[in-house]
Parts: sequence; C-alpha cells; structure tokens
Amino acid sequence: MIQRIDHLGIAVRSLDAAIPIFEKLLGRPCDGIEIVESQKVKTAFFHVGEVAIELLEPTDASGPIAKFLENKGVGLHHLALATDATDAELSRVTQAGIKAIDQAPREGAHGKQIAFLHPKSTSGVLVELCSPPEG
Amino acid sequence: MIQRIDHLGIAVRSLDAAIPIFEKLLGRPCDGIEIVESQKVKTAFFHVGEVAIELLEPTDASGPIAKFLENKGVGLHHLALATDATDAELSRVTQAGIKAIDQAPREGAHGKQIAFLHPKSTSGVLVELCSPPEG
Repeated sequence: MIQRIDHLGIAVRSLDAAIPIFEKLLGRPCDGIEIVESQKVKTAFFHVGEVAIELLEPTDASGPIAKFLENKGVGLHHLALATDATDAELSRVTQAGIKAIDQAPREGAHGKQIAFLHPKSTSGVLVELCSPPEG
Repeated sequence: MIQRIDHLGIAVRSLDAAIPIFEKLLGRPCDGIEIVESQKVKTAFFHVGEVAIELLEPTDASGPIAKFLENKGVGLHHLALATDATDAELSRVTQAGIKAIDQAPREGAHGKQIAFLHPKSTSGVLVELCSPPEG
C-alpha cells in the first residue's frame, strides 16, 4: 500500500545556486548531496517532516532532468510515493489501468526499489513508486 | 519554523476525471471536496501520511489555476509548507532575500493563514506558507 510521500523532486540548473535558496526557505542546512549515476543527476536533499525535498541537477545533457529543464524549465519534477513493496504496488496500479514507464522495479538511489509511472495516465504528474532495498 | 509539508497542489482540468485516477493510484477514496472562492478553484484532497494531495480544478477562467493550465498544462502546481506562524516565517524568508507574492498573510481555505512566495526567487517552485487559523 501507499504509506506516505517519500520525496518530492525539483529540477534545478545549479545546486550551487539552489541549495542556499532552499536553506533560506526551509531555515535549515541541506542534509546531504549524492550523485545518482543511473539518473545522470546530482541531488541535494532536505528532510522536512516525513518527506525529503530533493533538488536535482543534471550531470549530463542526455539525462531525464536535462531534458525536463530544456522542455519545461526549473520547478517541481516528480512525486515519489513510499510503499512497502514496489513490485506489488506496480502490479496493483497497472491492473487498475495506470500506465508505467518501468514495467518492473529497478534499483534507485540508496538501493531502493523504484518504478516510474507515466504522467499521461496520472494527470500530468510524474509519479515514482519506491520501497526499501530488498533482502 | 517550517514543520512539514502541509500539502501539494496539482492542477487538473477536471476533478471528475482526476479523482478516479488518484483513487486508483493511492488505493483509497478521496477525503473530500471543497470550493475555495478566493482562489477560484474546486479542490479534492487525499491524505497521504502527514501531507495532503490537493487536486485543483479552476471554477473560473480568470483564476490562477486556469492561467497555469493555459500556460503549463496539467501537473504539479505548488508546494505548501506548514509553519506555526505564517507572519513570522514570511518575515524571516523575505529578510533572507526571498521575494513574496503576498506581502502579508491572508486567509485561505479552512481559515488558515497563508502567503505565497514568488517562484522566481525559489528555483521555479511556487511555495505557499501556511499556518492554523488565528485565535
């Protein structure tokens, strides 16, 4: 089942510029920076209650965040929903008629199991399902 | 101080179409529908952990959601941060250099005190500060 919002991804052109803005906005320092090679992105995250706000800077012009910035500009990029089991939730939502980008879960940052759904079937919102590493 | 994410606003063209999609996605029924006259919007909300997901359908072509749909299309619209006191947080962030749309808190849905910040000074994200009704 869907438990909570895990994180909210925000596309930015420069972490160096965006981190100080979010530190001012949230009134706290950034909690960490990580490079996610598979997504061609460098991310800075802030914990706000039970949700992480993730700033996403592209590391390569061919990655999904670089393309998003080109097409839509900076701003809210995706909504990640935390579940106990991405595979079961992916089956449940696709059987309910929602289209998926990932037909099976794959490994994301921190070894999480993740799967993206298609924004055309979720009212224009890019949704990620995610669950803790297996094992 | 900023306590948590209060809600996430998603612009949709039709609640009748979007509510069933989010009910399938989240695996639970919608928690309620409300008209917010001041924002010229009809909203349907879902509680997901400590955050509400709010679907926003314009009730009038002159409102902010109608304009957003015209310019950007459906999708993630704004991020609302819960604080204990909107007036104090608005002062804090504007003194730190963030520009505000609302120079003073005003009353939003459910009698909350709200203030919007300018997306040009928050990395393209429309941010709302909100706190419980006064008194």
